Amino acid sequence: MKIAVDAMGGDYAPEEIVLGAIHAVREYKYDVVLVGDEQKIRRVLQQYDAKESERLSIVHASEVIEMGEHPVQAVRKKKDASIVVATRLVRDGQCEAVVAPGSTGAAVTAALLGLGRIAGIERPCIATPIPSKKGITVLLDSGANSNSKPKHLVEAAIMGSHYAKYILGIDKPQVGLLNIGEEVTKGNELCQRTYPLLEKLKTISFYGNVEGRDIPNGTVDVVVCDGFVGNVILKFGESMAMFIYRLVKQAIKNSGFIAKLGALAIYPALKSLKKRLDFTEYGGAPLLGVNGSFIICHGSSKAKAIKNAIRVAGELVQQDVTGHIRNSIEEEGVQEYDSES
Amino acid sequence: MKIAVDAMGGDYAPEEIVLGAIHAVREYKYDVVLVGDEQKIRRVLQQYDAKESERLSIVHASEVIEMGEHPVQAVRKKKDASIVVATRLVRDGQCEAVVAPGSTGAAVTAALLGLGRIAGIERPCIATPIPSKKGITVLLDSGANSNSKPKHLVEAAIMGSHYAKYILGIDKPQVGLLNIGEEVTKGNELCQRTYPLLEKLKTISFYGNVEGRDIPNGTVDVVVCDGFVGNVILKFGESMAMFIYRLVKQAIKNSGFIAKLGALAIYPALKSLKKRLDFTEYGGAPLLGVNGSFIICHGSSKAKAIKNAIRVAGELVQQDVTGHIRNSIEEEGVQEYDSES
Repeated sequence: MKIAVDAMGGDYAPEEIVLGAIHAVREYKYDVVLVGDEQKIRRVLQQYDAKESERLSIVHASEVIEMGEHPVQAVRKKKDASIVVATRLVRDGQCEAVVAPGSTGAAVTAALLGLGRIAGIERPCIATPIPSKKGITVLLDSGANSNSKPKHLVEAAIMGSHYAKYILGIDKPQVGLLNIGEEVTKGNELCQRTYPLLEKLKTISFYGNVEGRDIPNGTVDVVVCDGFVGNVILKFGESMAMFIYRLVKQAIKNSGFIAKLGALAIYPALKSLKKRLDFTEYGGAPLLGVNGSFIICHGSSKAKAIKNAIRVAGELVQQDVTGHIRNSIEEEGVQEYDSES
Repeated sequence: MKIAVDAMGGDYAPEEIVLGAIHAVREYKYDVVLVGDEQKIRRVLQQYDAKESERLSIVHASEVIEMGEHPVQAVRKKKDASIVVATRLVRDGQCEAVVAPGSTGAAVTAALLGLGRIAGIERPCIATPIPSKKGITVLLDSGANSNSKPKHLVEAAIMGSHYAKYILGIDKPQVGLLNIGEEVTKGNELCQRTYPLLEKLKTISFYGNVEGRDIPNGTVDVVVCDGFVGNVILKFGESMAMFIYRLVKQAIKNSGFIAKLGALAIYPALKSLKKRLDFTEYGGAPLLGVNGSFIICHGSSKAKAIKNAIRVAGELVQQDVTGHIRNSIEEEGVQEYDSES
């Protein structure tokens, strides 16, 4: 299986992206196609003594979409941008998944225009794994859309449920609707209209309303919400986790001599804590609902995050998550909800 | 100055509430009126060897609104509920502020019905102080409303700015609009319609859009958002902070013998960290925009949180935050925005 990786995307491209790919082909059975400036990529490969091969190849792309560019305009204009070319490789059957670090907007647009949506899905959305007491809570939509309608949350519930089942290995994932109280009548109009639709679904297990605290508590496996809310939570949570982590380190530093001795001993523990809190460790966030496997990575992704994203991209293909979503959408007949939303 | 405290509200009433009041009258110059079941309150006072006095008195209320009750129905029906009586004491001029632990819904309803809104304010809202790199970021609305309109965010910006200035002592508080990107054109309809209104304000300093990460980063002093979003963030943040704190403790515990010795030494540092992360330490969340000073406390508030809330309630009165809000609203002529929102 070949996975196309946009080698030019993100803050540390191409060095860290290429390095992540080198590690990935060593550890996993997936082949990687690095898409981007051929010369630059080749230079990084040489730097790490890695050779081009059937398992680790390059497809040249002459353009790059920068972080600040307008996603739709940039994707339309730059036909030879690395993210556009990578997506095209999947559309044309030369690769089976895309790993896209860098501008989320450009990645979503490239996927929507290049791969199209699964029949019956109106709004593909981003599923982000968030660390929780029980391991991971999947939050979606975490930013592909900013004005979600009830139908879109229904789609998100179905897609998130399949992601949790086939990628996280949770047998019967519980899906919660993010709200400001547990009672059925709580919340804004979006929640009140979405709740009865989720109750009717046959292919997922709907838990009911959950609150903000239920995300770190791991009350359910999948939390669905409007893309605006999801994006705010995600950015708040990442930043809060790193803020607290730094406070802990600072507290240890400031606590005197004996404490410093102790601190040396607990640094390994702290390091593993940091790893657990690092949202990027989990291998990126899949864009679900497009015709193909597509992983979006943080702009700040380094080699390890890229390697993990390649693994998850491969698993998405192997487990045929797209196919399972397609079947569920057909079985539920989600299209019927169109008029209600 | 007399502050009415609902002694029957919250998970630890009346013990912790009464104990908080005892500490408050000892530490601060404010007098406290404990409102609730006279016998029960008196028993707790005796238990702690505290005497009823001019500075710490009791006003009997025979009813209590429980956490699960429907706020509006309960406040209307139970005329002698402790929160209703406490609010009435302020309305009738016998006290100058209310401290309300327990059901947020019941407290907001009691304040709206009992005190009424400041002229020109359509939606009073809850301002919550959130720990940040720079100290505190004020988030509002953090849950009084769940379908905010542009006008309501304008009101929130003005109210939050005065709270930051007069209670947190920030000279020219910067106010940000919570969004999913920094660009003016970003976000949902609410944000896009609110941005130009905030730009026009004369009495506050509008920074522009901020993202979820800017709350812990302390990029601005005040962050305004829809009450649904604010409530979700608040509950998510509290729970995330405690989750991480427990992970740190666990990591130290699990890290072997030498680390344990070190851990003993760093426990004081951890304790002060926990304090910094404890949202309740800051003395509750004011309900701004009603005719009077009104502090809402977490249902899980213990004595210390109550004591702090009494102090903040006193400061709200002394600094005349309500008066400053009233003046700003008049100066801005916020009513004019009615037609736009």
